[in-house]
Amino acid sequence: MIQIWHPCTQMKDHEKYPLIKIKNAKGVYLYDFEGNSYIDGISSWWVNLFGHSNERLNRAISNQIASLEQVIFAGFTHERALELAKLLSEVVPDNLSRMFFAEIGSSAVEISLKMSFHYFQNIGQRKRKKFVSLKNGYHGETIGALSVSGEDLYKKAYKNILPKNIVSPSPDCYRCKFGYSRETCNTECFSDIEKILMSNSEKICAVIVEPLVQFAGGFKIYPAEYLVKLRNLTSELGIHLILDEIATGFGRTGKMFACEWANVKPDFMCLSKGITSGYLPLSVVLTTEEVYKAFYDDYITLKAFLHSHSYNGNAISSAVAVETLKIFKEENVLEKNKEKYKYMRSLIEDKFCELSHVGEIRHIGFISAVEIVENKKTKKPFNWKRRIGFNIYREALKRGALLRNLGDIIYFLPPYIIEPHQIEALVEAAHQSYLEVLNR
Amino acid sequence: MIQIWHPCTQMKDHEKYPLIKIKNAKGVYLYDFEGNSYIDGISSWWVNLFGHSNERLNRAISNQIASLEQVIFAGFTHERALELAKLLSEVVPDNLSRMFFAEIGSSAVEISLKMSFHYFQNIGQRKRKKFVSLKNGYHGETIGALSVSGEDLYKKAYKNILPKNIVSPSPDCYRCKFGYSRETCNTECFSDIEKILMSNSEKICAVIVEPLVQFAGGFKIYPAEYLVKLRNLTSELGIHLILDEIATGFGRTGKMFACEWANVKPDFMCLSKGITSGYLPLSVVLTTEEVYKAFYDDYITLKAFLHSHSYNGNAISSAVAVETLKIFKEENVLEKNKEKYKYMRSLIEDKFCELSHVGEIRHIGFISAVEIVENKKTKKPFNWKRRIGFNIYREALKRGALLRNLGDIIYFLPPYIIEPHQIEALVEAAHQSYLEVLNR
Ligand SMILES: Cc1ncc(COP(=O)(O)O)c(C=O)c1O
Ligand SMILES: Cc1ncc(COP(=O)(O)O)c(C=O)c1O
Repeated sequence: MIQIWHPCTQMKDHEKYPLIKIKNAKGVYLYDFEGNSYIDGISSWWVNLFGHSNERLNRAISNQIASLEQVIFAGFTHERALELAKLLSEVVPDNLSRMFFAEIGSSAVEISLKMSFHYFQNIGQRKRKKFVSLKNGYHGETIGALSVSGEDLYKKAYKNILPKNIVSPSPDCYRCKFGYSRETCNTECFSDIEKILMSNSEKICAVIVEPLVQFAGGFKIYPAEYLVKLRNLTSELGIHLILDEIATGFGRTGKMFACEWANVKPDFMCLSKGITSGYLPLSVVLTTEEVYKAFYDDYITLKAFLHSHSYNGNAISSAVAVETLKIFKEENVLEKNKEKYKYMRSLIEDKFCELSHVGEIRHIGFISAVEIVENKKTKKPFNWKRRIGFNIYREALKRGALLRNLGDIIYFLPPYIIEPHQIEALVEAAHQSYLEVLNR
Repeated sequence: MIQIWHPCTQMKDHEKYPLIKIKNAKGVYLYDFEGNSYIDGISSWWVNLFGHSNERLNRAISNQIASLEQVIFAGFTHERALELAKLLSEVVPDNLSRMFFAEIGSSAVEISLKMSFHYFQNIGQRKRKKFVSLKNGYHGETIGALSVSGEDLYKKAYKNILPKNIVSPSPDCYRCKFGYSRETCNTECFSDIEKILMSNSEKICAVIVEPLVQFAGGFKIYPAEYLVKLRNLTSELGIHLILDEIATGFGRTGKMFACEWANVKPDFMCLSKGITSGYLPLSVVLTTEEVYKAFYDDYITLKAFLHSHSYNGNAISSAVAVETLKIFKEENVLEKNKEKYKYMRSLIEDKFCELSHVGEIRHIGFISAVEIVENKKTKKPFNWKRRIGFNIYREALKRGALLRNLGDIIYFLPPYIIEPHQIEALVEAAHQSYLEVLNR
């Protein structure tokens, strides 16, 4: 019998902690085969927006499969793909006029990297071969995406087979190396990447960042001003700016896209995860007319972007994405979320602020993260081998809450349809779990 | 308004040949908004098995979404994923005991490369850093997958940003450089890769090939004996063999998997495309207990395979994959296909064999390919700029058949549910289109 090898997992952990087998899910709740329920406090890896097994999204799928599930997307198109393009036009920065389909976040990132490099080849700037990304940045696990990762945890083992790119120091507001706080900050740390860009400007194709929040890097939130400066400098130097909005997109930071906080327009924007409300794999890369034109020519010039994936433009995923955007339009989602996440924040502040090992509590939009440290004053972390965060995650499961940690950071990132009493239960489970782990 | 940039396409071609907008599809037919229908002769990029909008598969989706669409696949599992593992156990080579989820073909390939490399790192064979692949081989478009591509068309533009791997000459039976025919062949060409493996054996992690048929490389069919020799030699040298069955898998070559023709057991097997009958993106990597064990240890040893994608183990795609395998089990698909593809072959031979520009007709399972050349005797191809194959594809569309060319190779790769009269229509459309293009 074949056994499943799970992602991002030391399988030996499951000797002690058996995998939880989910039977069904509805709204914010996951139900297992043993009669337990769990509030999905992390939206099943940051993808779910409107709850599990959502009637409206289910209907969109049922309608779609009755007519078309998939058709080759070279030479052919279909209604749902065109509708998705139209609906995205209404919400993304208005300089983005072209859209390329992919299916997963990583492949969207790969496409943006390849397009950027190929663009410069096509226009004759052939020295540009490098990408710059930020420490603690995360853009996926395929080899190209990993080559712009700033997370040693995922990258280190593969360094000998990855293309070499440039990782810049990143903003780290909790532990600002210039000694400022969020209030006194003037994005001094921008000087790090500035130096890198200035001294390598002719070799660089693009800078890729997660705008405003480095998710996998530990929910590190940095100022919009940093993004403004980055956009200005890259424009000056003729370097592309790729915004990876795979995790930040679709309202998670309180705006439809995080780049709106900075009013910044990228050359490439990668979207995935929430684009289908967490139903099905789908991703897209959006780019500018200028980029598109560098590939547009007679066939025999061989300038075309020949990238493809079998399931590009899948009609079922497109249908769910269309429905997702309609929900945003029709149900005033961003506005309604505000009240909910403010309530969530206030509860979290109340319960966690005074605890002796809570280093920082960070919020943006419908994300709240609590960083746990050994020493509140020096900000010294716990020895990672103690797995404090992981133990809190385990305790929370016992209390009916799914709160997957990142190191010793626990975070709250629930589906938007969560109700106040469910927020209360989630925060309470987290609080109890914290006490259980840190006071025992 | 955002416009869609299509995969593997010079968009300028669409000035002359507008994209075809598909309204719905049923069985082997695609229907556009202008009342035209097209027989899907290429199974929508080699993915569709049982026809479009298939009742049984639609039902599997409807049932699934009623209970669970997606749950985080780290720490959690669900019924459909386990069922899929069970059903795959019954059909894949029995040395494969572990399965890792991905969503697209390219990411499955990336995972197999990363796992192979990481395996050797974990067991202390740290010099192994290179991968060997075959000329004309195709394994996808993400940067890692492209680095093992043997197809200059897709790869050349990116050579300065790809990891450097080794591409071996490949079997090319139609133009055998040793001067043999398929009848007299003794896989002399194996000596090419043999030399490469022998002289680099300590540096190589894995060899990756498409077993028996190089699809995107032009439906180049090579002898099972080559695969046998490759397995023997890689085993001897302690090198992994990765079989990319993404296109060959699920009955396309007449056996469930192409490796069965050679009775060869790989260290890694990548599956996608037909795994969901062409409905939804899903892919898996299968591997051995030996590989798995090299990652299995206490968490703090940091030996785990930390790869992940957001939608790993998606429940909807898994449900369609489960249903796909049930159809194979219950409906005697492989046996029933035989009669159909034999009929298709005989029609193609009848119509094409004598034509003055048909260089070779190749068949294996439910694939027939016709290679068109300028000179039948010397096998000299037409000047590629004439786009003979592409023009035949265009003509076939006018005649109600989707027959996407690969260069000047046209091929027949229909859904398995195609009926004899539909096969006739398909072959006839191809024949007429050939005559139109080459006799005008
Ligand atoms: C043999 C083979 N490997 C890998 C791939 C890549 O799969 P995907 O297009 O889903 O990334 C393909 C796709 O055509 C293929 O034919
Ligand atoms: C910011 C960001 N980029 C890229 C990715 C990769 O997406 P996927 O996991 O679908 O490959 C992720 C996934 O977590 C992400 O958070």
